[in-house]
Amino acid sequence: MTRKLYELVGADPTRRFSPFCWRSCLALAHKGLDFETVPWRFGETERLAFAHHDKVPVLVDGERVASDSWAIAEYLEANYPDRPALFGGALATMRFVSAWADGINPALVRLIVSDIPAVLGAAEQDYFRSSREKRFGMPLEAVTADREQRLPAFRALLQPLRATLAAQPYLGGTTPDYGDYMVFGSFQWARCVSPFRLLATDDPVHAWRERMLDLYGGMARLVPAFPH
Amino acid sequence: MTRKLYELVGADPTRRFSPFCWRSCLALAHKGLDFETVPWRFGETERLAFAHHDKVPVLVDGERVASDSWAIAEYLEANYPDRPALFGGALATMRFVSAWADGINPALVRLIVSDIPAVLGAAEQDYFRSSREKRFGMPLEAVTADREQRLPAFRALLQPLRATLAAQPYLGGTTPDYGDYMVFGSFQWARCVSPFRLLATDDPVHAWRERMLDLYGGMARLVPAFPH
Repeated sequence: MTRKLYELVGADPTRRFSPFCWRSCLALAHKGLDFETVPWRFGETERLAFAHHDKVPVLVDGERVASDSWAIAEYLEANYPDRPALFGGALATMRFVSAWADGINPALVRLIVSDIPAVLGAAEQDYFRSSREKRFGMPLEAVTADREQRLPAFRALLQPLRATLAAQPYLGGTTPDYGDYMVFGSFQWARCVSPFRLLATDDPVHAWRERMLDLYGGMARLVPAFPH
Repeated sequence: MTRKLYELVGADPTRRFSPFCWRSCLALAHKGLDFETVPWRFGETERLAFAHHDKVPVLVDGERVASDSWAIAEYLEANYPDRPALFGGALATMRFVSAWADGINPALVRLIVSDIPAVLGAAEQDYFRSSREKRFGMPLEAVTADREQRLPAFRALLQPLRATLAAQPYLGGTTPDYGDYMVFGSFQWARCVSPFRLLATDDPVHAWRERMLDLYGGMARLVPAFPH
């Protein structure tokens, strides 16, 4: 197989935990395209030099390379137009979903960041802790210290998703599309790195996350994760 | 002309200020469909009994009636399929934009609600003040007392819109679609009822609002409003 996706992993190379890599994994599965994961860890920027990029995901599809999850989605849509559409014919509107999905992560990281070092190898732990503590200006444990109190605000942030799911099973309608994958990526990130439970079990977003975990033979359920 | 749109107006019948009615106005203009506004004021529920509905917008299109702005958009898309598409082929994704647009209004109303009575007639003022003060549990002036302090949070809420507009001139892409009309409706509501300035002049959302005001011969610019 020549199709390879460089993905962020933890100490365990099967713990693929990047929200953006999950967007690309599910986009490839949506298109029915086989691929191999190439495990990549924080700090291994030289290994991506061939792609002129310093972050994953990076897709290598035969002779072609695409970097950045949005660019990979556009690449797949342009190069595999006969496969199921990722954007449902509405690239422009999907950009808005993308911008909204990106906006979840700054709130989410503050609920889970202190749990991340434990899933990393020793070398990546040092890099991760020092770079993130510099970004937040405090120890990671201080960032998440009041996470129980901030959970209602996080759940409120999900209201547009919740309201949409009251009318249809997926953001894409009766079947999932790239909008679902973008948003789900963030939840998959959380469950791969943190035992902190984000969603009430009676939340329609919880039921949607379960449906997303079942897609494509349960591909997102099969990686190491915490029970949520 | 047999096509009529019942729209909320103030004491001045040309001050059409409902965010949801503006969604329908612009949807009709997008489809190139002429219509007459039928002025409607708070409390005139009996006048809508024919539509089995108690709120505007209500569209009367010959023998057919559609109530509620989302239903009106679906009606227009279904009955005028040869006209420009409102949903860009992605009804499902548009529902998410709708849910997000609806979520702006609870934050927005708390910035402008105390200005609304001044644009209403005497009878509607009493209805509006008592119903809204009951809802908020305080005088309208108390609701907006700290609006300057809450303005940064409101502007932060617009980040997904702002990020999308960095990539394209409209939510709909190179041309506006129903996503733009839903979000713009809220801004048009604000400028029709309140002098409070919501947007910094260097905000890309401000430039987008100007483009929206220019659409269809400046139809949204032509109603009585405050300089913003």
